[in-house]
Amino acid sequence: MTERDKIKHCRACGTAVNYIVPPDDARPRAVCPACGTVHYENPLNVVGTVPYWQDQVLLCKRNIEPRFGFWTLPAGFMELGETTAQGAARETDEEAGAHIQMGPLFSLMNVMRVGQVHMYYLAPLTDTVFNPGPESIEARLFREDEIPWDEIAFRTVRETLKHYFEDRRKGAFGFHTLDL
Amino acid sequence: MTERDKIKHCRACGTAVNYIVPPDDARPRAVCPACGTVHYENPLNVVGTVPYWQDQVLLCKRNIEPRFGFWTLPAGFMELGETTAQGAARETDEEAGAHIQMGPLFSLMNVMRVGQVHMYYLAPLTDTVFNPGPESIEARLFREDEIPWDEIAFRTVRETLKHYFEDRRKGAFGFHTLDL
Ligand SMILES: [Zn+2]
Ligand SMILES: [Zn+2]
Repeated sequence: MTERDKIKHCRACGTAVNYIVPPDDARPRAVCPACGTVHYENPLNVVGTVPYWQDQVLLCKRNIEPRFGFWTLPAGFMELGETTAQGAARETDEEAGAHIQMGPLFSLMNVMRVGQVHMYYLAPLTDTVFNPGPESIEARLFREDEIPWDEIAFRTVRETLKHYFEDRRKGAFGFHTLDL
Repeated sequence: MTERDKIKHCRACGTAVNYIVPPDDARPRAVCPACGTVHYENPLNVVGTVPYWQDQVLLCKRNIEPRFGFWTLPAGFMELGETTAQGAARETDEEAGAHIQMGPLFSLMNVMRVGQVHMYYLAPLTDTVFNPGPESIEARLFREDEIPWDEIAFRTVRETLKHYFEDRRKGAFGFHTLDL
């Protein structure tokens, strides 16, 4: 989840681009003076799950930057060729090696500063065998009173966990949106 | 909403890229043999509204391809520097010149074939003065029995309209997800 570098060269022909506002547009884009290609840059989706087992939630300890050593829900960038739920399932497999059923979309959060939209799905675990991949140091279950709130990697994860345990107490899971 | 062209040159240095699977990755990416930049391509978000007034919904007749002359809800690509709801409001202003209050997220639909996620917000109109922009031939209100179902531009729009009128009859608006 690194910051994106500015576009300097045309993706079609390699010529150095200019930042100008194209006709019929409202904002500057990287435009190629040789072939005319206009390069758009748009927000990215980060998709993940809230894997749960009885009164516990599965978190992964990050083995990568940013936030090395902090705890997170399994999540990552949505790829072409998959739906939001398929991406969330793939990340859960890659980061935790956990076995889940895919439930409904639970949270959608805009992180405007970094140009990202984060979405988390509820995902009941079908067993408690985990097999964390190279991006995770460890994957384990936490009851609410065990959650390391000061060592949660991202605010979107903290907000999603808070809503999860609140809704669980209420006995009814909703859909939560938030702008950060 | 055109198809994206394949990346041929490095955005950082202009060198012709190779498509290879980078180390610790699972799929081919455009990788620069000169500077090592890895180019990721990800799904895009299309954000819009269901602007409504009493028992009517606002549709725009498209003045652009694709689907020139067909009817659509106001929607377009989410930009950097805005939230999903802000993007939906901007598109509603640009395409219809309509005055709305922003309501809750109503539908989220994966259109995997084109690498897009479409989201529509409920948006009560505050008046019935419209001022369609250059992308629209016309903007007008339709009651359910007036909707030109065979001239709706996109399936995501048709599905969102169907859910809108169903929920309206029930007297309760939900949140709807769908994979197309
Ligand atoms: Zn060019
Ligand atoms: Zn390069």
